[in-house]
Amino acid sequence: MEIRNDQPMTDSEPPARHDVIGLGNAIVDVIAEVDERQLERLDLAKGTMTLVDRERMTGLYAGIGPAVEMSGGSCANSMAALAALGARAAYVGKVQDDQLGEVFRHDIRASGVAFDTAPLQGGPPTARCLVLVTPDAQRTMATYLGACVELGPDDVDEAAVGGAGIVYLEGYLWDRPDAKAACLKAAAIAHRHGRRVALSLSDPFCVDRWRDEFHRLIADHVDILIANEAEVCGLYRVNQLDDAIARVRGEVGIAALTCSADGSVLVSGSTTERIPAAPVTRVVDTTGAGDLYAAGLLYGLTHELPLAACGRLGGLAAAAVLGQLGARPEGPLAPLVAAAHSV
Amino acid sequence: MEIRNDQPMTDSEPPARHDVIGLGNAIVDVIAEVDERQLERLDLAKGTMTLVDRERMTGLYAGIGPAVEMSGGSCANSMAALAALGARAAYVGKVQDDQLGEVFRHDIRASGVAFDTAPLQGGPPTARCLVLVTPDAQRTMATYLGACVELGPDDVDEAAVGGAGIVYLEGYLWDRPDAKAACLKAAAIAHRHGRRVALSLSDPFCVDRWRDEFHRLIADHVDILIANEAEVCGLYRVNQLDDAIARVRGEVGIAALTCSADGSVLVSGSTTERIPAAPVTRVVDTTGAGDLYAAGLLYGLTHELPLAACGRLGGLAAAAVLGQLGARPEGPLAPLVAAAHSV
Repeated sequence: MEIRNDQPMTDSEPPARHDVIGLGNAIVDVIAEVDERQLERLDLAKGTMTLVDRERMTGLYAGIGPAVEMSGGSCANSMAALAALGARAAYVGKVQDDQLGEVFRHDIRASGVAFDTAPLQGGPPTARCLVLVTPDAQRTMATYLGACVELGPDDVDEAAVGGAGIVYLEGYLWDRPDAKAACLKAAAIAHRHGRRVALSLSDPFCVDRWRDEFHRLIADHVDILIANEAEVCGLYRVNQLDDAIARVRGEVGIAALTCSADGSVLVSGSTTERIPAAPVTRVVDTTGAGDLYAAGLLYGLTHELPLAACGRLGGLAAAAVLGQLGARPEGPLAPLVAAAHSV
Repeated sequence: MEIRNDQPMTDSEPPARHDVIGLGNAIVDVIAEVDERQLERLDLAKGTMTLVDRERMTGLYAGIGPAVEMSGGSCANSMAALAALGARAAYVGKVQDDQLGEVFRHDIRASGVAFDTAPLQGGPPTARCLVLVTPDAQRTMATYLGACVELGPDDVDEAAVGGAGIVYLEGYLWDRPDAKAACLKAAAIAHRHGRRVALSLSDPFCVDRWRDEFHRLIADHVDILIANEAEVCGLYRVNQLDDAIARVRGEVGIAALTCSADGSVLVSGSTTERIPAAPVTRVVDTTGAGDLYAAGLLYGLTHELPLAACGRLGGLAAAAVLGQLGARPEGPLAPLVAAAHSV
């Protein structure tokens, strides 16, 4: 890992080695196009992520057409996009020492992200996520977590986490006790080193599963909360986004709430910035739009952009993947940074 | 495998169970975009296929950016496209019992192609091919054959091969003695059952490696020859396509010679059909264009289309993949059949 010394000092801590270090489920996506009838037959809740066991994954895979494999994982997508924006990103996540694990490791490193988590030797295979894209460009996901479930506190290195400006946690990690412990360890390290902790709520079903724990986590550890409308409304059990905004305002330093085609709302103290969505010519696949929004936001927050520009950059990064299949950006995103500044 | 009885009888043979059965190297493609400078650094001959060993593959993979994995293999691409056109296709090729082998098996079966070759247990992994796409949409390939090298005569089943209207052989198979023996066995079975044998010359370098053997193979066994301009000129060591046409005319029943943007030439007895290329809005990636041409041609030849319509269907199928990344067609190609008829 390259050490750069051009970062401002925070308290008595040395400059950050990375802008952001993310913890997440390390997953290879298996992307296929399906029509609505096929999706119904597969019995998956449209637009959400369902956790499945190995047997169900085998059955689902047998039920879909030809697919394309591509590295994925929500937080990993965000870290790859951060690197494409020009930020220094690192990632912590568990793959198996198998072919899909090799694909994951190659791709995230080739994206410019530092990734040093030891692969699992033996046990479950590298995680995969069936990403089923319907003609309306929505994606429905089924994830077999495989090796991800072995991510634990031992994979969290104090120097790496303490040396990043922000530690970014994926809500999906709450589905496994060891991964949760890894997150809590990382959050504690971050704060001990004067760094910030960001959390993505990941998925409305995930919020339903872990509402109470997320409330405690947010109160105790989270400086930056990233969620879409359904997730944040689910967190507070409210129907209106404005009610959720009122609740979240006092709880975290910064909340970034995305509303699909309606753009996003950034809430910080008494400030509320409403950012329209960036224009998109043709939506091919919404996979990764939330992950790319998070990347743009985190870039802005670690590069001292004004709050509104952070939201604009999130929106521009999200728009960049809406026109392509899959969640990893196809080219450099750095030109977006200037665009986010210049409105 | 489904048995249909709507095929005309050939001699005393029962109706064909499949229109075409293909033998080829079963490969998963690893597709990445590179610029010209990267390609030079990797020291690969642009526009061709280079065979590499496992160590060189590892080095090349380390030198490229993030990639996408997709089932490939020249002949397998053709069989998947034949199925997408509405033909009954079968495939013979060797994968390992590993994750990429599972991907290959799933995709070809999900494309509607019968595939029953037993996977290798132990030994080299499933083959992969780095497909490096430059900004000019050309592709340069490096293949590690892995488990493919274990394809042999035992994988060729008399009932399956004898029960297909055409057996289609990929020239690339000549690089391995056992695969060559499998091809010769398949050709002998086909002719014993009154079927036809088609051969693709695959690659100009492949022709250079096996020129004399290809001459013997063509003279003894091949009814239908498919080649691009560079390959057929290389076969006869001539500089002008017309000289190659003069040579090939007496050697095979039908020769289909592709000339990129100049379309194709079909030669059969005293007939010569020159078919212009089908219009393409935007060429994204030439990977698979030759494979799709072969599929269209073979569809026409097994569905009693006039010779010119066979060439037109080849051109239309090729055009269909030029606008996308990768060599497997993204949707059904059946509407092209009517278009090929209706000129």
